[in-house]
Amino acid sequence: MRVLLLNGPNLNLLGTREPHIYGADTLADVEKRFSDEAAALGLQAECFQTNHEGQMIDRIHAARLDGTRFIVINPGGWTHTSVALRDALAGVAIPVVEVHVSNVHRREEFRHHSYISGIAEGVIAGLGVFGYSAALQFVAGRLRSA
Amino acid sequence: MRVLLLNGPNLNLLGTREPHIYGADTLADVEKRFSDEAAALGLQAECFQTNHEGQMIDRIHAARLDGTRFIVINPGGWTHTSVALRDALAGVAIPVVEVHVSNVHRREEFRHHSYISGIAEGVIAGLGVFGYSAALQFVAGRLRSA
Amino acid sequence: MRVLLLNGPNLNLLGTREPHIYGADTLADVEKRFSDEAAALGLQAECFQTNHEGQMIDRIHAARLDGTRFIVINPGGWTHTSVALRDALAGVAIPVVEVHVSNVHRREEFRHHSYISGIAEGVIAGLGVFGYSAALQFVAGRLRSA
Amino acid sequence: MRVLLLNGPNLNLLGTREPHIYGADTLADVEKRFSDEAAALGLQAECFQTNHEGQMIDRIHAARLDGTRFIVINPGGWTHTSVALRDALAGVAIPVVEVHVSNVHRREEFRHHSYISGIAEGVIAGLGVFGYSAALQFVAGRLRSA
Amino acid sequence: MRVLLLNGPNLNLLGTREPHIYGADTLADVEKRFSDEAAALGLQAECFQTNHEGQMIDRIHAARLDGTRFIVINPGGWTHTSVALRDALAGVAIPVVEVHVSNVHRREEFRHHSYISGIAEGVIAGLGVFGYSAALQFVAGRLRSA
Amino acid sequence: MRVLLLNGPNLNLLGTREPHIYGADTLADVEKRFSDEAAALGLQAECFQTNHEGQMIDRIHAARLDGTRFIVINPGGWTHTSVALRDALAGVAIPVVEVHVSNVHRREEFRHHSYISGIAEGVIAGLGVFGYSAALQFVAGRLRSA
Amino acid sequence: MRVLLLNGPNLNLLGTREPHIYGADTLADVEKRFSDEAAALGLQAECFQTNHEGQMIDRIHAARLDGTRFIVINPGGWTHTSVALRDALAGVAIPVVEVHVSNVHRREEFRHHSYISGIAEGVIAGLGVFGYSAALQFVAGRLRSA
Amino acid sequence: MRVLLLNGPNLNLLGTREPHIYGADTLADVEKRFSDEAAALGLQAECFQTNHEGQMIDRIHAARLDGTRFIVINPGGWTHTSVALRDALAGVAIPVVEVHVSNVHRREEFRHHSYISGIAEGVIAGLGVFGYSAALQFVAGRLRSA
Amino acid sequence: MRVLLLNGPNLNLLGTREPHIYGADTLADVEKRFSDEAAALGLQAECFQTNHEGQMIDRIHAARLDGTRFIVINPGGWTHTSVALRDALAGVAIPVVEVHVSNVHRREEFRHHSYISGIAEGVIAGLGVFGYSAALQFVAGRLRSA
Amino acid sequence: MRVLLLNGPNLNLLGTREPHIYGADTLADVEKRFSDEAAALGLQAECFQTNHEGQMIDRIHAARLDGTRFIVINPGGWTHTSVALRDALAGVAIPVVEVHVSNVHRREEFRHHSYISGIAEGVIAGLGVFGYSAALQFVAGRLRSA
Amino acid sequence: MRVLLLNGPNLNLLGTREPHIYGADTLADVEKRFSDEAAALGLQAECFQTNHEGQMIDRIHAARLDGTRFIVINPGGWTHTSVALRDALAGVAIPVVEVHVSNVHRREEFRHHSYISGIAEGVIAGLGVFGYSAALQFVAGRLRSA
Amino acid sequence: MRVLLLNGPNLNLLGTREPHIYGADTLADVEKRFSDEAAALGLQAECFQTNHEGQMIDRIHAARLDGTRFIVINPGGWTHTSVALRDALAGVAIPVVEVHVSNVHRREEFRHHSYISGIAEGVIAGLGVFGYSAALQFVAGRLRSA
Repeated sequence: MRVLLLNGPNLNLLGTREPHIYGADTLADVEKRFSDEAAALGLQAECFQTNHEGQMIDRIHAARLDGTRFIVINPGGWTHTSVALRDALAGVAIPVVEVHVSNVHRREEFRHHSYISGIAEGVIAGLGVFGYSAALQFVAGRLRSA
Repeated sequence: MRVLLLNGPNLNLLGTREPHIYGADTLADVEKRFSDEAAALGLQAECFQTNHEGQMIDRIHAARLDGTRFIVINPGGWTHTSVALRDALAGVAIPVVEVHVSNVHRREEFRHHSYISGIAEGVIAGLGVFGYSAALQFVAGRLRSA
Repeated sequence: MRVLLLNGPNLNLLGTREPHIYGADTLADVEKRFSDEAAALGLQAECFQTNHEGQMIDRIHAARLDGTRFIVINPGGWTHTSVALRDALAGVAIPVVEVHVSNVHRREEFRHHSYISGIAEGVIAGLGVFGYSAALQFVAGRLRSA
Repeated sequence: MRVLLLNGPNLNLLGTREPHIYGADTLADVEKRFSDEAAALGLQAECFQTNHEGQMIDRIHAARLDGTRFIVINPGGWTHTSVALRDALAGVAIPVVEVHVSNVHRREEFRHHSYISGIAEGVIAGLGVFGYSAALQFVAGRLRSA
Repeated sequence: MRVLLLNGPNLNLLGTREPHIYGADTLADVEKRFSDEAAALGLQAECFQTNHEGQMIDRIHAARLDGTRFIVINPGGWTHTSVALRDALAGVAIPVVEVHVSNVHRREEFRHHSYISGIAEGVIAGLGVFGYSAALQFVAGRLRSA
Repeated sequence: MRVLLLNGPNLNLLGTREPHIYGADTLADVEKRFSDEAAALGLQAECFQTNHEGQMIDRIHAARLDGTRFIVINPGGWTHTSVALRDALAGVAIPVVEVHVSNVHRREEFRHHSYISGIAEGVIAGLGVFGYSAALQFVAGRLRSA
Repeated sequence: MRVLLLNGPNLNLLGTREPHIYGADTLADVEKRFSDEAAALGLQAECFQTNHEGQMIDRIHAARLDGTRFIVINPGGWTHTSVALRDALAGVAIPVVEVHVSNVHRREEFRHHSYISGIAEGVIAGLGVFGYSAALQFVAGRLRSA
Repeated sequence: MRVLLLNGPNLNLLGTREPHIYGADTLADVEKRFSDEAAALGLQAECFQTNHEGQMIDRIHAARLDGTRFIVINPGGWTHTSVALRDALAGVAIPVVEVHVSNVHRREEFRHHSYISGIAEGVIAGLGVFGYSAALQFVAGRLRSA
Repeated sequence: MRVLLLNGPNLNLLGTREPHIYGADTLADVEKRFSDEAAALGLQAECFQTNHEGQMIDRIHAARLDGTRFIVINPGGWTHTSVALRDALAGVAIPVVEVHVSNVHRREEFRHHSYISGIAEGVIAGLGVFGYSAALQFVAGRLRSA
Repeated sequence: MRVLLLNGPNLNLLGTREPHIYGADTLADVEKRFSDEAAALGLQAECFQTNHEGQMIDRIHAARLDGTRFIVINPGGWTHTSVALRDALAGVAIPVVEVHVSNVHRREEFRHHSYISGIAEGVIAGLGVFGYSAALQFVAGRLRSA
Repeated sequence: MRVLLLNGPNLNLLGTREPHIYGADTLADVEKRFSDEAAALGLQAECFQTNHEGQMIDRIHAARLDGTRFIVINPGGWTHTSVALRDALAGVAIPVVEVHVSNVHRREEFRHHSYISGIAEGVIAGLGVFGYSAALQFVAGRLRSA
Repeated sequence: MRVLLLNGPNLNLLGTREPHIYGADTLADVEKRFSDEAAALGLQAECFQTNHEGQMIDRIHAARLDGTRFIVINPGGWTHTSVALRDALAGVAIPVVEVHVSNVHRREEFRHHSYISGIAEGVIAGLGVFGYSAALQFVAGRLRSA
């Protein structure tokens, strides 16, 4: 049972920049922990980060055929601007959890709207990198009960 | 280390109505599980539900003096309409996690804005009643690292 | 076959204040006539008025279990502000007719939007206290044809 | 004491199309029942339907001189678009009740605004064809008390 | 000549929380000073605070019959959300002065609109707790000249 | 040199209704005076009023071929709603002056926007029926200088 | 298999006015070509143009009973203003293709919204009079595959 | 019977700049013609132009005491921005006609709203400098009938 | 300890015009009383009124150097339109109380927004000319506690 | 005479996903048919699909130099979000037809606005994959008449 | 070749107030440097500052006749509010560069719109007082290439 | 001291297309001049252009580690749509100057808002390619004074 963790633009900077907003864990830390926790829950995690929207869409399309059962995605800045990303996720019809490290609702007005939330199962924001773990547990529960 | 679980209007109906939106667990189930999980995490949970805004505000004020370290709240319909509730939470200066059982972003337009998110640490929506557990784990992590 | 008549905030003032807007009948007159007309139509009416949103929600919840077949409600000022009231009515899944004594569309802009209309069967405004009678006749027709 | 029943565009289709929205009664049924009920209330009803805005305005103007005391109108799609119709009704200074068979507030956003409500005595929506009867009773009451 | 001082939700916290916004005086201090100043001006003050909208509305209704000549109200968070409160004040037809301890115009956008101002004689904001005294003096002047 | 005076819906009521808004002159008075003044200015006037948008459009189309050099139009309620009328006027490419008897800017918000003004030479509002004379003089000046 | 071609207000001017926007073909040319192409595709075309909204609605209603299988409509200026036209098309439940000769999206802002698109199968704009041919081919394809 | 002609900012440039918008007459020409026409109508005209809002307000205030019976004003750019000018005109309670040389409704969006129209008797736009003459004739008629 | 009282455009008309809105006291009365009350509070008042925005800005700039400790300003119509005035007040960094004689929130929509409130300590509206006294007392209190 | 067919993000999924919206033809089917039909019309087609905005822009730039005479583009999700794509098309100054397989006007609100329509010759939506054929025929006609 | 440097309201305070926003150079410093740099570029600079809109407009008008070839203007607070200033600049038809010392886009929302930018050649914001030098160099380049 | 010049989508077309908007200099000209001027100012310039958002973000991230002290960026069409680009620039915490060759404020409405301006030091628009030189001089001044 495969779970795909996707991180969008600038999330490769996690832990190195603006730690008052995003915390001190690096993306490598996040992906390592996600994979370990997935294994502990009997799931197989795959992690992918890119700053290129096209690569993200291609990766999502590939998930249709590689047995992915759930996607956990932090779409970064594309959250608020990318209909193409929304369409990719809707197009492959794999359930999605949307995660934001910071509480987007306490930041600029333009971060309050998400093109992804409308097609996601659930949304987590502001729990720091723990949000990824929470999403994973939710996924595990959903897959167990499926 | 006390954690307060607050549920707003109509959440007493949990599990009995509109299960396609809210699931089959009753509020009693939710509160029981929350308390058990809290104990397992070394925390003491207290649970409160009301359909009366004034009682909710009074309960939040009381938390100032009873050692509450964190509030987990599902504000129900007040999410979108109650500045008084926001002010109560801001007034007692206890950190807050906002939880919604359903994904409010997939429902009516008026459910997309929350008066609470602007003063919350984090927001969880659409994870079903697992959202309460996720919030609790986040709280435990935050209190451990404090 | 029970019909519940609910009146929201300030409607206890009916007949005593602003008669150019609301007419001269008191709430007692209204409730008396509603009950009599219901009886004449073979229905049993129950009447309730409150200025407390929480009590209104509790009363609506109670209707789930007491055999209420239809709700006639004048939500007063909550019409325009209370998502919690909407959720309560939707949560108990009892059909609703919304009544306003005055024509809200001729008053302030903020009275032109109703949170209740979106979940009501029908809406009556500006017919004065006769609106309650019209709602009751509609209910009787619906229950007869059910 | 003459009452004029006006039905706007597409209401000649009543009963033949989209019965899940508009019910099964035809316009002829509606007009027949309206006339009968009027007679029973001591009123004389006249009924008119047109898909031509100009004919509707001409008919309203004629009402100035033929002793019409009240107008009951279902303006159909003109409700949301015709200032000319509003001006015609205001221009003849005959009191008006606005009726909609369906609950316009549960349909498309553009049906939530009415140019007629601002000059009507009262508004009825969503009560099906019973709305015409309710309007007639209201009119009878108003004329009796005048 | 009776003057009623009403304080809405969270104002029981005055002096204990967020003193950079609300100052150091407690509600008891405010009410004591208000009563003393009223007496010095030949008026009789009555003070009431509640976090329950329904209780506030009930209290306002009671003022109709107890000889209250003026109301001074700090509606707190209800300022921006409660049509029911506005209707209660309009319903009893007692003149009103609206007071805000902080300058609401320098705070969040949603605090810039008040449902109360439209039916108030005057509005005072940002003068700290002195705003209550200013309101009282205005009331005294108005009652003297009446 | 032919000038066409067009009056839209409800302007046949001029002088008989709402004289506080529209004055006491009837449409016949207006058309008579317009024709006389035109003759005095060396122009031939033709006058047309209709409550039917289609007839108005047909009449405007006919003006393409009958030597009309200028159109003076009071579009009544269509001012704010009829793109078809605007297109008709633009389609025949005859210059237009728009006249309103009342000052539309002091009336309801929806009367502040005109679909006609964007293709008119000039706009006159609020001068009462003198507005027609002013328009005619302007037309005469324009035709003399052409 | 009958196809109905409807042209709204001012389209009788096609080819005679504003050729930079609408091209040089007259309406007669358009209707002739439409009929010929329909015949070549095994369909029977019927063409109708009017500047009277009421006549258009009546014609659409008639299509319910005369075997019309598809409607191709250029609603002209009514596109942006006529809910009655939309309701007529929805009321007869015949599938619709909406055609605009010019690219409405490059013209005034008010031409960017259409009341018809929301109930049409497809929309063609800016292809000049070829748009009618394209619509016809689409219709032929749909009828063949039905 | 004194009539005051006021011209606001940049109207001293009339005739020298942007003649495609404003025509070739200079302000001196305009004022000369206005005075002559006034005399011919039995009125005494006074003309004033300024680019200083304060001077304009002072001049309007002076009109209270110098027997001015009507004001004709072209407020130029202040039309869209000056509440102070509106208040000055309302404050002296002298009736006003608003004139614009160009058709403001065909220019930038921000020129479509006027702070003056809401307190003016009438508004003339786009008739070129003839607009001043038309206003004057209207004034003469009003004063004659007063 | 100097306090500067500033009155903006049209306030020189106080007491002579629209007394139902602004009361019967003249500006001279207001300034006299303000100076006397200031003296009684141990403060030195200086009063200035102008209809010229530039003079107002110059006067505010001068206050930087003449020992002014507080400004009480009624900005009149500039309240809603003058960023330059806001910048002048912010530029000299002297604390400000904004006063309006009438309750601006009960008047036209465009009077509900103030450019000054965002940089003022406090705002008083609708208390009539007593608002100036209330502001002065507030200033005295603030200067005493400084 | 070369025609370029461009398909944007997620259109590689055509025929495999959401067939109720997009139909059963694959992109390969579409491109094959487009090329064949182009050949039959005496044109040379070239087809390109990408999920990478940068590649799309690069491809459009290349069209400047390779003899492309017309572009047919389905911009997918970029329709609503990409100014860069609009600028690329405008920058190479090759005429464009915009095609959407589904009727975007019947889907989410955010799909109703297109950055491309403002620089396109024509727009086709909701005709399914036939839209590509219609566009091609239009292009052939335009190139023949050029 | 004359260049005119215009500074609007409050810019006489440059260097003395809010240095964190506007820097430490005084207006005299700015004007001196501007004149010296102009001379070095073979241009003759003239500098003018005023807090009076009317004086600014008069000065711009004068530039029509005194050989001014370019205007560099920092409109201060009028940027966002003065149509009259825009009209003055457009009226004299001298090219304009708009300069803001601070980055207006990082400040209050109302500073994000400029009435001047729509008629300016270019806009510079946030480069501190160097913005004036950059504008001057641009002007010199433009005049050389003219 | 390294300065990075970034040019976004379509700027590779500079000088070859739409010279009335963008001028005749090619990108190579611009980059050559930028590098030469940088050297003359004692700075080392590096230039990069891409039509791929992902490559731009990667390049910005690389600047964190290669000693870049300032970024000059013309974001092209991404200015108005890319939150990811804004986040990349904010994420590396290198100061930024935003340059636009054309005056974006005189073009389409959607070009009036920039996601970059809110995190930039300064913004230059409409100075043609000189804007790059002005930005460079500003950077040199800032680095010298650092």
